[in-house]
Amino acid sequence: MARLVLKFGGTSVADIDRIRNVARHVKREVDAGHDVAVVVSAMSGKTNELVGWCREASAIHDAREYDTVVASGEQVTAGLLAIVLQKLGVNARSWMGWQIPLRTDGSHGAARIDAIDGTEIIRRFGEGQVAVIAGFQGLAPDNRIATLGRGGSDTSAVAVAAALQADRCDIYTDVDGVYTTDPRIEPKARRMDRISFEEMLEMASLGAKVLQVRSVELAMVHKVRTFVRSSFEDPDAPGMGDFDNPPGTLICDEDEIVEQQVVTGIAYAKDEAQISLRRVADRPGVAGAIFGPLADAGVNVDMIVQNISEDGSHTDMTFTVPASDLDKAASIIAAAKEDMGFDVVQSESGLTKVSVIGIGMRSHAGVAATAFKALAGRGINIRAITTSEIKISILIDGEFSELAVRTLHSVYGLDKARP
Amino acid sequence: MARLVLKFGGTSVADIDRIRNVARHVKREVDAGHDVAVVVSAMSGKTNELVGWCREASAIHDAREYDTVVASGEQVTAGLLAIVLQKLGVNARSWMGWQIPLRTDGSHGAARIDAIDGTEIIRRFGEGQVAVIAGFQGLAPDNRIATLGRGGSDTSAVAVAAALQADRCDIYTDVDGVYTTDPRIEPKARRMDRISFEEMLEMASLGAKVLQVRSVELAMVHKVRTFVRSSFEDPDAPGMGDFDNPPGTLICDEDEIVEQQVVTGIAYAKDEAQISLRRVADRPGVAGAIFGPLADAGVNVDMIVQNISEDGSHTDMTFTVPASDLDKAASIIAAAKEDMGFDVVQSESGLTKVSVIGIGMRSHAGVAATAFKALAGRGINIRAITTSEIKISILIDGEFSELAVRTLHSVYGLDKARP
Repeated sequence: MARLVLKFGGTSVADIDRIRNVARHVKREVDAGHDVAVVVSAMSGKTNELVGWCREASAIHDAREYDTVVASGEQVTAGLLAIVLQKLGVNARSWMGWQIPLRTDGSHGAARIDAIDGTEIIRRFGEGQVAVIAGFQGLAPDNRIATLGRGGSDTSAVAVAAALQADRCDIYTDVDGVYTTDPRIEPKARRMDRISFEEMLEMASLGAKVLQVRSVELAMVHKVRTFVRSSFEDPDAPGMGDFDNPPGTLICDEDEIVEQQVVTGIAYAKDEAQISLRRVADRPGVAGAIFGPLADAGVNVDMIVQNISEDGSHTDMTFTVPASDLDKAASIIAAAKEDMGFDVVQSESGLTKVSVIGIGMRSHAGVAATAFKALAGRGINIRAITTSEIKISILIDGEFSELAVRTLHSVYGLDKARP
Repeated sequence: MARLVLKFGGTSVADIDRIRNVARHVKREVDAGHDVAVVVSAMSGKTNELVGWCREASAIHDAREYDTVVASGEQVTAGLLAIVLQKLGVNARSWMGWQIPLRTDGSHGAARIDAIDGTEIIRRFGEGQVAVIAGFQGLAPDNRIATLGRGGSDTSAVAVAAALQADRCDIYTDVDGVYTTDPRIEPKARRMDRISFEEMLEMASLGAKVLQVRSVELAMVHKVRTFVRSSFEDPDAPGMGDFDNPPGTLICDEDEIVEQQVVTGIAYAKDEAQISLRRVADRPGVAGAIFGPLADAGVNVDMIVQNISEDGSHTDMTFTVPASDLDKAASIIAAAKEDMGFDVVQSESGLTKVSVIGIGMRSHAGVAATAFKALAGRGINIRAITTSEIKISILIDGEFSELAVRTLHSVYGLDKARP
């Protein structure tokens, strides 16, 4: 008997039929004797409808009112799922954020969770009751509804799992796990059984859209074992109720991963743009002078590479931004040219960042060299490189995206089934 | 400077454009210096959508979950109206039932209001803030959302007006006031300037669908001056902001109506059915034996007429039910025939009840006689009559409905403008 938090996203609860399917997943776990809390998103499309009305009402609007409007979507799903569960004979009740309460800070529209009182929900586990929790929402200090911002329901689920000291947080979604790379690009991509929090964090922030970065961070901090699985499979198919080894990918502490791979996965992010500043004055504070104004404007600067200039007395500075931010970044830099002191700006868009991720890299030399050599062998030019302890990111021309992903996926042996 | 509660129904807030129009009505009153609370319904169609989902989830469903789902409609409107008001420069915030709190009893799905804490809303009037209140909802003793049942937003508005000690509760709707009779039947029907609570109660319960009976009862008990007016007129048209004499109908204490009319209005209810029991044993308890089982089955029995039977030793019992309840009523009576002791059942549907209403009747003789004579003059047969202090109800064949309404409207001089 374990304690589980199950989370279902918008496409999994898009209509009453799908909500019935969700209820069967829940019932399966309840019948197995587990304590179950369910976290739900709004029915797919509903959040966009509500957000659209807020924008139509006023382009700039009070975040507290926005939260009141938008949080209604999860409220509806929670009530409906409770009704369907009851019809299946499962004792269930819905919980809004303010009822639990799930307390947040006062940053309406993008609130952070401060505390979750799980007392009453845990007490009702003792009575065999399932808690159906509206995701994405909480109660702010002003006694008003606050929403958690994008991906908020994943974050709700992980936070609830931490508060309830759940054995696992199962994220049911429209894919059946985390893959070694994007299967649409590399059909040989394989579903991982396990991946460490650190690796998943890199995968998520690099564009693997299975889980929001924020929920992975939270899972890592609170050591919430998080399991990615499909909500569209038959809830009663063989193995679905196998507690120890259900189909999907477990995101967990690296201690739980017995056989570490050197490289776990290949991630990529398209539509990057590169900006290069030549002959920047090589004096203290110059990086702050360049990146401060960009940060103030909300431009998300990613890879930063600094080199000595050709003349040896200056420095060259290259960095990437999302292509959608390029015009804004370029005009900020142009405006601050005097201040920053540089000669030439070069920029290019249509680039892709491919990344090799693996916790085993820490103890293995030559991982980066293997990547560079493999890409060179395919005639793919490398525009910039950054590395971290468990990741190598390489900026290339966008036209080589798929080829690079496939090449790297193959060179690290990810095509082959693990022993 | 007065304190006003304004209530807007579903068609008045059907989309963002209409919500903008509502906001202009609100702003007009705010600009005039009044304290303003607004009570809103769900956008038209939304409540039906939410109710439909609950039914699709399960034909029989937990009323607490139903309330959670359905109350979200008003939540959305309240947030959106607050946003639009802020855009117009009006200081406004939304209030859910649980935030005020507006406390109800535990009858989820059809809750009654127990208490409304107006302290914080009144304090904020002092800061010039408008309260935008989600109608139809409150907080039950179990700390969950309760809805007030059909017509709940009118009831919310009147109860809020009582709690805030408002000078007036303005019900903005899709008609511009209360008429002497249905203008679709009698184009000469005139809008009344004033009508007493008692008269309005009779008009409402007899099918004038301007206001829910329950909200009129509440207004009468708490002496809330309630004003029916149109939300579709230009908010800034001449006279709309006239505090003492805006266009519409004031429902108020009869003391406020200087010149009482003998007859105020003609109401009607179609689709009535009549059931007659002949030769009922004339002994104590027989009425209970007949109407008890009907009440238990939820059949709404209306006009009851009892006569001595032709043979003098028994009694005849005639009563009306809505035509939609006729089959149910007939089968209950058939099943209980032994118990009730009667000979013959006759039933007929397709009947109409027309009613003459007026507080002045109390002090004027001959009002009923005038009606009977007028109907006879048109060849309309009277099937049953019931009277109260301020009302005469007459059951006729449905085909004469319109003719009867017009005849009565004319015979009491309602066609003519009041002096």
